[in-house]
Amino acid sequence: MSLIDLSKQVALGVDIGGTNTKFGIVNHRGEVLDKGSLKTDAYDKVEDFIDALYEHVYPLMEKHGSEKHFDGIGVGAPNANYYKGTIELAPNLPWKGVIPFTELMTAKFNLPCTVTNDANAAALGEMLFGAARGMKDFIMITLGTGVGSGIISNGSLIYGHDGFAGELGHTIVKPGGRKHWSTGSEGSLEAYASATGITITAKKMRAEFPESMLNQYPEDEINSKTVYECAIKEDPIAIEVFRYTGQKLGEALANFVMFSSPQAILLFGGVIKAGDFILKPAKLHMERNLLPIFRNKVKLVFSELDEADAAILGASALVWEK
Amino acid sequence: MSLIDLSKQVALGVDIGGTNTKFGIVNHRGEVLDKGSLKTDAYDKVEDFIDALYEHVYPLMEKHGSEKHFDGIGVGAPNANYYKGTIELAPNLPWKGVIPFTELMTAKFNLPCTVTNDANAAALGEMLFGAARGMKDFIMITLGTGVGSGIISNGSLIYGHDGFAGELGHTIVKPGGRKHWSTGSEGSLEAYASATGITITAKKMRAEFPESMLNQYPEDEINSKTVYECAIKEDPIAIEVFRYTGQKLGEALANFVMFSSPQAILLFGGVIKAGDFILKPAKLHMERNLLPIFRNKVKLVFSELDEADAAILGASALVWEK
Repeated sequence: MSLIDLSKQVALGVDIGGTNTKFGIVNHRGEVLDKGSLKTDAYDKVEDFIDALYEHVYPLMEKHGSEKHFDGIGVGAPNANYYKGTIELAPNLPWKGVIPFTELMTAKFNLPCTVTNDANAAALGEMLFGAARGMKDFIMITLGTGVGSGIISNGSLIYGHDGFAGELGHTIVKPGGRKHWSTGSEGSLEAYASATGITITAKKMRAEFPESMLNQYPEDEINSKTVYECAIKEDPIAIEVFRYTGQKLGEALANFVMFSSPQAILLFGGVIKAGDFILKPAKLHMERNLLPIFRNKVKLVFSELDEADAAILGASALVWEK
Repeated sequence: MSLIDLSKQVALGVDIGGTNTKFGIVNHRGEVLDKGSLKTDAYDKVEDFIDALYEHVYPLMEKHGSEKHFDGIGVGAPNANYYKGTIELAPNLPWKGVIPFTELMTAKFNLPCTVTNDANAAALGEMLFGAARGMKDFIMITLGTGVGSGIISNGSLIYGHDGFAGELGHTIVKPGGRKHWSTGSEGSLEAYASATGITITAKKMRAEFPESMLNQYPEDEINSKTVYECAIKEDPIAIEVFRYTGQKLGEALANFVMFSSPQAILLFGGVIKAGDFILKPAKLHMERNLLPIFRNKVKLVFSELDEADAAILGASALVWEK
């Protein structure tokens, strides 16, 4: 029987975004030993991207390789399929069609590779290293340009029969409501609670209320950041933009709670910078729409992971959570 | 090493409803070897109920006991908590408060006892013996007086952190919509898609359309059965009652699919007697609200289990699925 020395085991975590790809070498304690990044959109062919990633990563692997053992590579990417190891029809990535991503990675790096969507990776990162340590049932909601989600039930990610479970941003919160700019669906959570959704709400509301501070900005500067600037200066319309966003989010969260009865819901991403402006109405409307047996039980909290490292940590967690 | 002879193992399945309790002795093949029933509401004290259940069951256990081995008791009951073995604050049962049900059962029967809510038990029954055989990801929706649900993900029931997961009947499908007669929530699935919800819809619609056949019945005879009678006689208002019900159901199902990406959704219970009058619009509105990656993948089917036995089979399945 050979003992495994956990302190020597490391994983490579890779987070692929539409513009940038970040990577890091992570140990079992969630410490990022080394990290780097490259431009995703500089590579029209996925093979060229993987070659470039290898060129970036190889020196770091050499540096740590003598004393560490690389267990594998974990990748978080939009439209990634855990079961098939593919990235499929990702609208925000330069590589079209169905890409056998893990196969290409393993061929290049000679290491096992696992892929999942970025929100699932973030959920794993929170469970192993963040605010969800010790929890077996929670939901991670990422509020950024879009709205993503990762659902942990009984200690495991819910993947569904085809690997695509957890698209909570596309659930409908207002039937017949706001048309989504890309999916065409009407009244989805993402249409309201994403940064893009907040911008739409803000533009609508400032047009209705000429006295709002929001009207001091040119059209192309209206976004969740400028709304936040006006909200902290107590502009009631900016505050209402976030309150309305929080209400829609809270109504959606109530439905999620009655599905999987999580111990906590973790919010992550750029939009949470709005803090209590969104969190308080979200909490209020979540509780209001819950059955009594679920009330005042679910923690609604912000991620504890450093945003710069969270994606890398989450991706690396895939290696050990297989 | 001792071999276990599966053909000799049996379980006692018990389904507790507000009015009647059914029980049966079930083998691994899902065959009900013997069965019986008693009145739930004849016993004000749960201890008296368990004594009476024992009196009913004992002769059957004696009869099969010489050649069969009883592995345990599985119970499906409203408001049952799998983790704690309790029945809690069940509005439709005569026993109030938090009842340590499995503890009382084991003390009386000297057999291990497991309890879960009735819709979860039905889902297990479908997975072991019914339309979901071989499936690892599906959702069971029971459409009766109320709307219940059991969610199977990766081959196991989703219980959530407290054992109360899967209350899909209480998710909101129309924010600010119809007020629920008992929970007070606004626009829940149960308010529209239960037999009670259908009756409310039918009464509203027949008042608006005096020419409808539904107006030939006295008020207290309007229910999903009489609506069905009018629908098969091609009364457009009765058909519209089911179409509207199916739409609300389909919209809710789309959200459920984007949560756990099931291979199938199984519908069960009295309401499904309406057949295609509900199934077709449900399918239409489910597909319409799904992201493209989920479309035309999820089977929407009726339960295959005999309704009289399904509850007993599902409850007995608990014994082997622990």
